[in-house]
Amino acid sequence: MSVLAGVNTKVLKNGDAAPSPPAAGTFRIYNMRFCPWAQRALIYASVKHIPSEVINIHLKEKPDWYFSKHYKGQVPALEHDEGKKHVIESAHIPEYLDDLFPETRILPSDPYEKVKQKLLLERLGAVAPAFYGAVQAASNPAVREEKYAELVKAFEQAENLLTSDFYSGNSKPGFVDYLIFPNIQRSFWLSHILKDFPLSSTSFPGPNYPKLTKWYKTLESIPEVAAASQPIEAGVGFFKDYMTGTPNYDYGL
Amino acid sequence: MSVLAGVNTKVLKNGDAAPSPPAAGTFRIYNMRFCPWAQRALIYASVKHIPSEVINIHLKEKPDWYFSKHYKGQVPALEHDEGKKHVIESAHIPEYLDDLFPETRILPSDPYEKVKQKLLLERLGAVAPAFYGAVQAASNPAVREEKYAELVKAFEQAENLLTSDFYSGNSKPGFVDYLIFPNIQRSFWLSHILKDFPLSSTSFPGPNYPKLTKWYKTLESIPEVAAASQPIEAGVGFFKDYMTGTPNYDYGL
Repeated sequence: MSVLAGVNTKVLKNGDAAPSPPAAGTFRIYNMRFCPWAQRALIYASVKHIPSEVINIHLKEKPDWYFSKHYKGQVPALEHDEGKKHVIESAHIPEYLDDLFPETRILPSDPYEKVKQKLLLERLGAVAPAFYGAVQAASNPAVREEKYAELVKAFEQAENLLTSDFYSGNSKPGFVDYLIFPNIQRSFWLSHILKDFPLSSTSFPGPNYPKLTKWYKTLESIPEVAAASQPIEAGVGFFKDYMTGTPNYDYGL
Repeated sequence: MSVLAGVNTKVLKNGDAAPSPPAAGTFRIYNMRFCPWAQRALIYASVKHIPSEVINIHLKEKPDWYFSKHYKGQVPALEHDEGKKHVIESAHIPEYLDDLFPETRILPSDPYEKVKQKLLLERLGAVAPAFYGAVQAASNPAVREEKYAELVKAFEQAENLLTSDFYSGNSKPGFVDYLIFPNIQRSFWLSHILKDFPLSSTSFPGPNYPKLTKWYKTLESIPEVAAASQPIEAGVGFFKDYMTGTPNYDYGL
């Protein structure tokens, strides 16, 4: 049973009333079901077994009140302490949850091991812009070769930086594994949509990335990760619409 | 007496031999005297009284060996444990030093207060690109109005976000104050160079920013901050050359 409540509820949008503040001792995550950044917060809460209420936000018709949760109106935002505390940004929320609940900490407590995880996450960051580049390529064949090459380069780098079973460097997934998974998963979905996509859809990302292929299969089958993820049919369906400029944030509901 | 040794030494460049690893128990910071990002590491080491050896790097003719310290060849990089440990990135090095030396910690230990400082630093981040925009404006009058407006907007935002004497929110400077100071100082130097610059050079940034003007004066007069800063003559001289495309990394030595 997942600790995440309300993941698959319809988005709130402009005109919808603001929800009442979360009850004392409960956590709320403002989310969009297909946003890889918000998914980082969901995965972390899920793995740490922090019961959390999820509220989905319409990212093109944002409710006015949402800007009091996140000054830029983006997701994720974490809200707790009866609505008195807000934490934003996908790399900061997980570390904050580790600081709040050190008994289930995922980041190492050793200072050097900890900072190495944060720097490794930044180094892997190229997979995110490379994904959006590949999305662009779908509607603009002129840049396809270049954008696909950038994606391949980002995945080759991710393969090279995976020097053991997990990016944590030990026998269990860690901070980097959980935070980079949603970005990698977006390219998995894309592999089911785009023609001549350079990554394999059947044994993703494919034989050129043996470590990463094993890693992806392992990560997606972790129940806490799966509970924080959308099924492949929904992900593929959402991005098909997204690429035409008309995303349906309630896709599949 | 500053804990920083070698701040004002000439840069090492391509062809120069690699320095031997730092001795056991000593810290080394790879720096460029006019780089605001590297200055963050210097200020933090200075304020925390961590004796550190500073080595300056020629950023246009980088020594090959430097890429073993920082994979992108940028500054700052922190090296210690006899050359076995390297930490990079200007926002990560300070937190790492706080984790290593919690007895002089600058970041709050309360999780919420800590993450608020990190988010505030990111929110103030617009002063950095606005500075480089103003530099651009010097050689391209067509964009001047637009770039100056962006700079003013960033400073207005910085003024509004300064809700007490310091960005720390209490009676002493903190993480945000020390880390944003170098970025603000670059615009101070620029105010002595550019004609019709929208910020005052005499009572910087000027009467439209009363809180920030008092803040700047306080910060620059802190001995540990001054020890990690270049004097105004050097800063102004360096950026005059920088704007013509021919920076002299050893300016003033």
